Amino acid sequence: MAGFGHVGRAFLSLLLEKADTLRSRYGLDFRIRAIVKSDGGLLSRSGVSPDRFRALATAPLSNQSGWRPGLTVKDALEGKRKGVFVECTPSNIRTGEPGLGHIRAALRTGWQVVTANKGPFVVDFKGLRRLARVHRLDLRFSAAAAAALPTLDVGIHSLAGSDVHSIEGILNGTSNYILTRMGEGTPYKDALKEAQSKGIAEHDPSLDVKGWDTAVKLLLIAGSVLELELTLADIRVKGITGIRPEIIRKARQEGKSLKLIGRIDRQGDRWRAEVSPAALDSTHPLFGVSGTNKGITFETDTMGSVTVTGGKSDPRGAAAALLKDIIHVFRG
Amino acid sequence: MAGFGHVGRAFLSLLLEKADTLRSRYGLDFRIRAIVKSDGGLLSRSGVSPDRFRALATAPLSNQSGWRPGLTVKDALEGKRKGVFVECTPSNIRTGEPGLGHIRAALRTGWQVVTANKGPFVVDFKGLRRLARVHRLDLRFSAAAAAALPTLDVGIHSLAGSDVHSIEGILNGTSNYILTRMGEGTPYKDALKEAQSKGIAEHDPSLDVKGWDTAVKLLLIAGSVLELELTLADIRVKGITGIRPEIIRKARQEGKSLKLIGRIDRQGDRWRAEVSPAALDSTHPLFGVSGTNKGITFETDTMGSVTVTGGKSDPRGAAAALLKDIIHVFRG
Repeated sequence: MAGFGHVGRAFLSLLLEKADTLRSRYGLDFRIRAIVKSDGGLLSRSGVSPDRFRALATAPLSNQSGWRPGLTVKDALEGKRKGVFVECTPSNIRTGEPGLGHIRAALRTGWQVVTANKGPFVVDFKGLRRLARVHRLDLRFSAAAAAALPTLDVGIHSLAGSDVHSIEGILNGTSNYILTRMGEGTPYKDALKEAQSKGIAEHDPSLDVKGWDTAVKLLLIAGSVLELELTLADIRVKGITGIRPEIIRKARQEGKSLKLIGRIDRQGDRWRAEVSPAALDSTHPLFGVSGTNKGITFETDTMGSVTVTGGKSDPRGAAAALLKDIIHVFRG
Repeated sequence: MAGFGHVGRAFLSLLLEKADTLRSRYGLDFRIRAIVKSDGGLLSRSGVSPDRFRALATAPLSNQSGWRPGLTVKDALEGKRKGVFVECTPSNIRTGEPGLGHIRAALRTGWQVVTANKGPFVVDFKGLRRLARVHRLDLRFSAAAAAALPTLDVGIHSLAGSDVHSIEGILNGTSNYILTRMGEGTPYKDALKEAQSKGIAEHDPSLDVKGWDTAVKLLLIAGSVLELELTLADIRVKGITGIRPEIIRKARQEGKSLKLIGRIDRQGDRWRAEVSPAALDSTHPLFGVSGTNKGITFETDTMGSVTVTGGKSDPRGAAAALLKDIIHVFRG
């Protein structure tokens, strides 16, 4: 494991909580080789039971006996026995680092990779996928593409054999919460403050409200489901910062609901991707997705329209998505 | 293939339509060994390209050169080379036949099984699953459990590692269509006639409107996702035949929507399954599922609530679900 913030801790707690289920239902019994942070980590080449880390779910990693200052991910990946590398360092959508370097190193040394980190895919989606293919390794990132909302599973697994013509999603909980509150009459600034005080929006909410988080998720989903190699520059992005209350009021009066939508569809022989606010009417399958909820609709040639909504977005939801991906790595 | 009605024909058409996609995207190139109906069939031990059957999508099977009167499924399953047996004879929820015998014979002779037939599972869910396990063969039935709506995929694959506490579904398009029209002021009898004239309801709609179709799908889903071995006798079933317009009007006035819901949840240490009309309020994730649409909500411990809606229910949608299951048989 690399990264031991909210998601990393939630993942460790989940491994502990689910040990019996993993054993009985999936025949899986995990050992942890290492947990690495930016300034060091814990390492046991032969692996220890997650149970040994029970205290860790709440205490700082560096208080643990065995703490090795300066331990790096590369150190931890060395050795004959390989397993799954779980990447949950913070996303940096400009450089992709440190996750990008970690994932490349893991794939090059024969580790399967499961990650909650979006950054590496924004910077080098194509290269990472190629690297995984060349080494015949899994590279799974459900947790990065909307946490527990199964955007990739549904798009790839449930729709196997169909052709997806378009994808539309409400992919950012913060923006959707703000728009929902604005629909109830709260001004933008107050709705944002409220979201911040509830821990929904970050102190700097710009990635969310300016539409970039939605664009990044759209890039991951389009890349995986449609096999498109987009960059952020290919996506026209408009967020919710400039939305006037009148627009929302008007949508409401017409029985519609304003949502920040990430959308990709085919225009003639090319795909067009964009993020922008849109007024959905009441028959739209995402119309009822409100508050911090998310949802995604796939239009297909043979299965009609398939929509999935819900799924926790908190660290526990992201950790559950990591665990699901790991189960799929082993259970194929 | 056994059965060559609407679904069987749609499946053959789909194999033809998707030949290129199956080859390029999944590396799959199918041959058809046999198509068997109740009175005979076509058989080529070495298999022929689906393309050879292009005329069949519309013409009667028995007009085809090579038609063998009296050919049975058992005849067709014989031989060294095994593949996937696709069962799409009509569902009989009392006897399970002829599908039940077909599926048992297929599993016993080493064939993977994919089916759109509900009947065999109502009669012997436990036995069929055990038989598949013993022979280490796949037995997949997405098409029987709500056609292109991915109820089983989401419940098993997307929620892997989580515990499902309850399942609620709108699983019957005919009933939902009738309730939707009643909500718009149409009396039950007229709504039913309308559904029949549009080909949505069958001439004898009793399995649908009395709730049994919903109960059967709930049995398949609960069996697969929760590993419960239910019989229809374990499910309290109430349909929509007795619903008075006042009930629907009242729900509407309260901002609610009346749906026929199949539900299973835990009451203390046991599960309780029932099918009955319920007034959903506007925040319920299935509130907006109207007309012939279907939907299902899973409540989980780690991923929150996950809902999937839509998915075609026509023969093409069922055929697409069969094809998806076949892809999963081969692609793991």
